[in-house]
Amino acid sequence: MAEGARKTGVSLVDADVHNYPKSIDSLTPYMSRRWVEYVRHTGFQTPPVDEYPRFYEAAARRDAWPPNGDRPGSNPDFVTGQLLDEWDIDYAILNPLYGVSRVHNLDFGNSLMQAVNEWTARDWLDADPRYKGSIVVNVSDPPAAAEEIRRRAQDPRFVQVLLLARAPAPYGRRQFRPIFAAAVEAGLPVGMHFGGGGNPVTATGWPSYYIEDHTGMAQSFEAQVLSMVCEGLFVDFPGLQVALIEGGFAWLPALMWRFDKNFRGLRQEVPWLTKLPSEYIREHFRATTQPMEEPENPEHLLQIIDMIGREDFLMFATDYPHWDFDSPDRAIPASIKAEQRDGIMFKTALEFYDFDRS
Amino acid sequence: MAEGARKTGVSLVDADVHNYPKSIDSLTPYMSRRWVEYVRHTGFQTPPVDEYPRFYEAAARRDAWPPNGDRPGSNPDFVTGQLLDEWDIDYAILNPLYGVSRVHNLDFGNSLMQAVNEWTARDWLDADPRYKGSIVVNVSDPPAAAEEIRRRAQDPRFVQVLLLARAPAPYGRRQFRPIFAAAVEAGLPVGMHFGGGGNPVTATGWPSYYIEDHTGMAQSFEAQVLSMVCEGLFVDFPGLQVALIEGGFAWLPALMWRFDKNFRGLRQEVPWLTKLPSEYIREHFRATTQPMEEPENPEHLLQIIDMIGREDFLMFATDYPHWDFDSPDRAIPASIKAEQRDGIMFKTALEFYDFDRS
Repeated sequence: MAEGARKTGVSLVDADVHNYPKSIDSLTPYMSRRWVEYVRHTGFQTPPVDEYPRFYEAAARRDAWPPNGDRPGSNPDFVTGQLLDEWDIDYAILNPLYGVSRVHNLDFGNSLMQAVNEWTARDWLDADPRYKGSIVVNVSDPPAAAEEIRRRAQDPRFVQVLLLARAPAPYGRRQFRPIFAAAVEAGLPVGMHFGGGGNPVTATGWPSYYIEDHTGMAQSFEAQVLSMVCEGLFVDFPGLQVALIEGGFAWLPALMWRFDKNFRGLRQEVPWLTKLPSEYIREHFRATTQPMEEPENPEHLLQIIDMIGREDFLMFATDYPHWDFDSPDRAIPASIKAEQRDGIMFKTALEFYDFDRS
Repeated sequence: MAEGARKTGVSLVDADVHNYPKSIDSLTPYMSRRWVEYVRHTGFQTPPVDEYPRFYEAAARRDAWPPNGDRPGSNPDFVTGQLLDEWDIDYAILNPLYGVSRVHNLDFGNSLMQAVNEWTARDWLDADPRYKGSIVVNVSDPPAAAEEIRRRAQDPRFVQVLLLARAPAPYGRRQFRPIFAAAVEAGLPVGMHFGGGGNPVTATGWPSYYIEDHTGMAQSFEAQVLSMVCEGLFVDFPGLQVALIEGGFAWLPALMWRFDKNFRGLRQEVPWLTKLPSEYIREHFRATTQPMEEPENPEHLLQIIDMIGREDFLMFATDYPHWDFDSPDRAIPASIKAEQRDGIMFKTALEFYDFDRS
């Protein structure tokens, strides 16, 4: 650990916590004069946000509002008390959902990217050693993103590169290679989180409701997994590991089967793949639990995990401070037995993330 | 049956066969002089086609070429021999994949729509009573589509309204209501088939390869099922029945679970829904088999069917004349037992489609 002594006796890792800037004023201290002036001059408040309500605070647990009125997830001390202390969490990975990639001015987007990461380091990672950081990157400018990864990775408290599932294009495409090259070079896994934008949010256009937007997010994850495997990302980077965050996982078996079947008929299109698509998926992807699919019959969940075919696949996450927060004591169905439960609650995350890198 | 005696002793229904015009010259005999002249004047050959190779003939079984060089699926006599006679198929539902909805000139699109349906009636349904028709509709002009449904439904050999999974917008949206109203009024189910267009083919933009396009088609089906349930289509039309054709089905359990879970937290957004989303799905959707998901462990497929929770859910289809044709004797895994197999091969289709309406 950056702080010195290696943490022992870990029993709970939260793989998805959201820290939010209180406002753009949380970031301007970490921006150059040029961009601070740009913010003032243009009245910029935030990058483009989600297309459907719920927005911001309304998407948070009601009790996640600090007494002083700060935005949920914006006050490190409050989060430390309400989340880390209350649940005795050993490590919590911070995933700032700040849409730097949706800013059309690339230089400004890059300035925001750097500011968000600096703010995470100073305002959060400095506040409590249990916090670990994700590096926010501007996928609209892959070379700049790669540079930011190389720079940030020197701070060992950052344990992952953060992408959003919705993007201007599928991540297997060549334009994104510099990002994955930099992540692998730095020894960091990539986390792909719910959210993002740049295209209609479903494969057949814009739906009407947030419930469609939210339920349909699995479609973006499916497209990304397909793309990353098809384009040979794991052939070029055999060490690359990807966490699917807040996208569920029960859709994976269907995808693996359809993908394998098509691969048998269409492999001449992707001749660089030397294994079945499902094998790449099994080797290179993990998923976080929240939001855990909850079949009425809990046996069905065990069957899905069996279909995915990898024991150490799931990593627990609360998604604090969002409305659909999963609490550590109730998120995992009773049908999941003790050993598998330990894997989910901390063991797999301890293997996937290097919390003690230096 | 339109032809007189009711067919008895049915043991095999093919729910997805594709009839193709040999060229635009197959359709012009059924178009008004205005549009025939337009075709000649503009050199029009075909509506926009798939975005990724394989195209047309290259997507067909090699042996589906008639000796005279006609396009696969374009010669009724040849198809009758190679498909219906060879496999002893009792009914075969014709789904012409002709992209009338992608023609930007709505009047021309409507002319093509009417011509395709007339061509199906005259060139195919007249050729053999085992053929049953799907009504092609122009979803870019819902009122015209509704009118076409009302007109065509008077011919009882048409047993379904045909939509494509990719569309300008999700089908739950109000603009499409006239289509569903007309289908229900005519007592016809709606079939939603692989294909279509109008938006990037994945929820995160354009992928590079046909294998992604094909494997990713499930995303469009997911978005459509979500939309149709969320927008209250089955509240307004409790009699509406929908067949998912060539989109697979193993992705349904994950969707149902995520959807139900979100509904519990977000139902105020869709207050017209009085049941769980999964209940609407179970009551109003069926799926065809081809392309059947093929897990390595055949037990997994039975588990998926159990998760969907409806015994009479699957209907057999060959997808003739396409490259990934499923043959009646080998498509259904041995793990599926006799009674369930009969349901798949003909019983469910006989209940879902009214082949003897008059």
